[in-house]
Amino acid sequence: MTGLTYRASGVDPSRKERSLDAIRARIARTKRPEVIGDIGAFAGLFASPGADTVLVATTDGVGTKLEVARLLDRHEVVGTDLVHLCVNDALAMGAEPLFFLDYFSTSKIDQEVFARVVGAMADACVAHRCALLGGETAEMPGMYGPGAYDLAGFLVGGVARDRILGPERVREGDALVGIPSTGLHTNGFTLARAILTRAAGSEQRTLEQLLGEQRRDLDDRTIGDALLATHRSYLPEFRRLREATRVHAIAHLTGGGWEGNLPRVLPTGLGAKIDSGAWPVPRIFTLLAELGRVEEMECFDTWNMGIGLVCVIDRDDLGAALAAIPDAYPLGEVVAHRSGRRVRFS
Amino acid sequence: MTGLTYRASGVDPSRKERSLDAIRARIARTKRPEVIGDIGAFAGLFASPGADTVLVATTDGVGTKLEVARLLDRHEVVGTDLVHLCVNDALAMGAEPLFFLDYFSTSKIDQEVFARVVGAMADACVAHRCALLGGETAEMPGMYGPGAYDLAGFLVGGVARDRILGPERVREGDALVGIPSTGLHTNGFTLARAILTRAAGSEQRTLEQLLGEQRRDLDDRTIGDALLATHRSYLPEFRRLREATRVHAIAHLTGGGWEGNLPRVLPTGLGAKIDSGAWPVPRIFTLLAELGRVEEMECFDTWNMGIGLVCVIDRDDLGAALAAIPDAYPLGEVVAHRSGRRVRFS
Repeated sequence: MTGLTYRASGVDPSRKERSLDAIRARIARTKRPEVIGDIGAFAGLFASPGADTVLVATTDGVGTKLEVARLLDRHEVVGTDLVHLCVNDALAMGAEPLFFLDYFSTSKIDQEVFARVVGAMADACVAHRCALLGGETAEMPGMYGPGAYDLAGFLVGGVARDRILGPERVREGDALVGIPSTGLHTNGFTLARAILTRAAGSEQRTLEQLLGEQRRDLDDRTIGDALLATHRSYLPEFRRLREATRVHAIAHLTGGGWEGNLPRVLPTGLGAKIDSGAWPVPRIFTLLAELGRVEEMECFDTWNMGIGLVCVIDRDDLGAALAAIPDAYPLGEVVAHRSGRRVRFS
Repeated sequence: MTGLTYRASGVDPSRKERSLDAIRARIARTKRPEVIGDIGAFAGLFASPGADTVLVATTDGVGTKLEVARLLDRHEVVGTDLVHLCVNDALAMGAEPLFFLDYFSTSKIDQEVFARVVGAMADACVAHRCALLGGETAEMPGMYGPGAYDLAGFLVGGVARDRILGPERVREGDALVGIPSTGLHTNGFTLARAILTRAAGSEQRTLEQLLGEQRRDLDDRTIGDALLATHRSYLPEFRRLREATRVHAIAHLTGGGWEGNLPRVLPTGLGAKIDSGAWPVPRIFTLLAELGRVEEMECFDTWNMGIGLVCVIDRDDLGAALAAIPDAYPLGEVVAHRSGRRVRFS
């Protein structure tokens, strides 16, 4: 029997190094003054922001949007998404981003795909003045199907102690302001894929054909384009809103849709009354609902339905909020709640 | 055609909630005074330690040790491992742990397995006085084989600015002190599995049979037991060493073995001279090497070979180091280096 090597067993540490080499310059551009030292140490160093600041930490993944991005060879999207969704989770607590780390896991590293995904993360970090402080690239033969990979993002932000957002600030009568999403963002892709796979099958077409077809009802875009729209970062809007209004709380509509997220920022005894006609639901959602015969409440429990961020503000500031964020919609208000669903649509 | 639901497509958000419910009490025990608020917010809050402290951030995974843990139904091990290895990466910079977040990804959440893995993480966080500040549980149908899951850990620690460890402090003549590992820890499992799968095949046995056989040369333990020994946390030893000696740098021997990790803490122009007879190499390593006919240098480039942590200290403190850590070994010293391998064994 011949001797075994790590490489022969499927793991090549030099592949990881070469993959990183291709994007080191882009990662270096994410450096902020607080960053100490260089990549290569056992952990990243970042000067602490001071005891009046509270650190805000979040972790998330992009779910099976990965599979659609892979199918359509649009790997950059999920890299950008990962940073944006973590930024949004942090700003929901009132925080500005400080630093980010990523976990990239696959059966065999494809250097080009890795560079596209992690390079896009680095660029998104630069755009948000967020240091890409570290990461782990795991090569695990047999864990993933050919070409498949998983991603996790970790972000730490900072917020002044007296500016933390959350349910403690929310009062009955507060106004709810919605900011549009670009589409599904990174949630409900498993349902979307099930719908489209079934629809393609019943038309005797492949999923790729259905995803790649230009459609008038999507403004000549394809379903694939609509699904792969980048998860919107709300950092610019958050900053403008914080300047212009008294923000009480912010809900990022991710997994679990409206009922799964909006109540997370409401104190016990309060709910949300939403005018479901207040904003136009993008065609991709109604199209998926039609193709899959998905009930309306199931849609709102799974997808954001066109609103990615719901901001809870002092009702006297509603006008200022709408002036500060031109594409925002007044959605409704915070109301008393006794039992049942806490988000009511009318 | 019947209407589709998110649940029918394979994702059940309530399964995630129920899985968390089972371990909420254990997670709550990880709370530290700096933690603000409760789980359920969009991100975790942790009071910043003050501007004289540097934050130390690291992310890592446990690799395909996951597959061995799954095969032998020993899921707790990889949960504990994940915390320990992140703690070790942070202490390699001189840091104490502050908070931890985890990412758990699978095709279909198995509530019992989830509770065992993440519950073990919570317990390990308690043992290290580290807050389990958040986590993401991703259910991605089709991404993983039945029962398979992936884990990523993210840890932030803190170190006083003037106590950061690293190559800047290292001088020619510094002493190298090794602290034993419990076995492979979490690295080189793909090679180990390839060796054992091939060996089992050539003996016409299953991998499970080979892993489950008690062996005299492993002190009546099984190969499975030896492989699944918990990744040792070196936090107690790190604290004692820091008290007793002038520590200059610490290398955590993980992926890439000796040559892949020890040079990370040595400045350009310096290397390490190691007496390879200074410590007993545990039988699991020589057994794997024999079964796989793995060359010696390949072993040292893949596995830790019995030493999990190499501490670089002032040579005058060698006696104090060995007195502070009874199971430590003097390994050798820091020497000049011109070209080729930076870790030389003699």
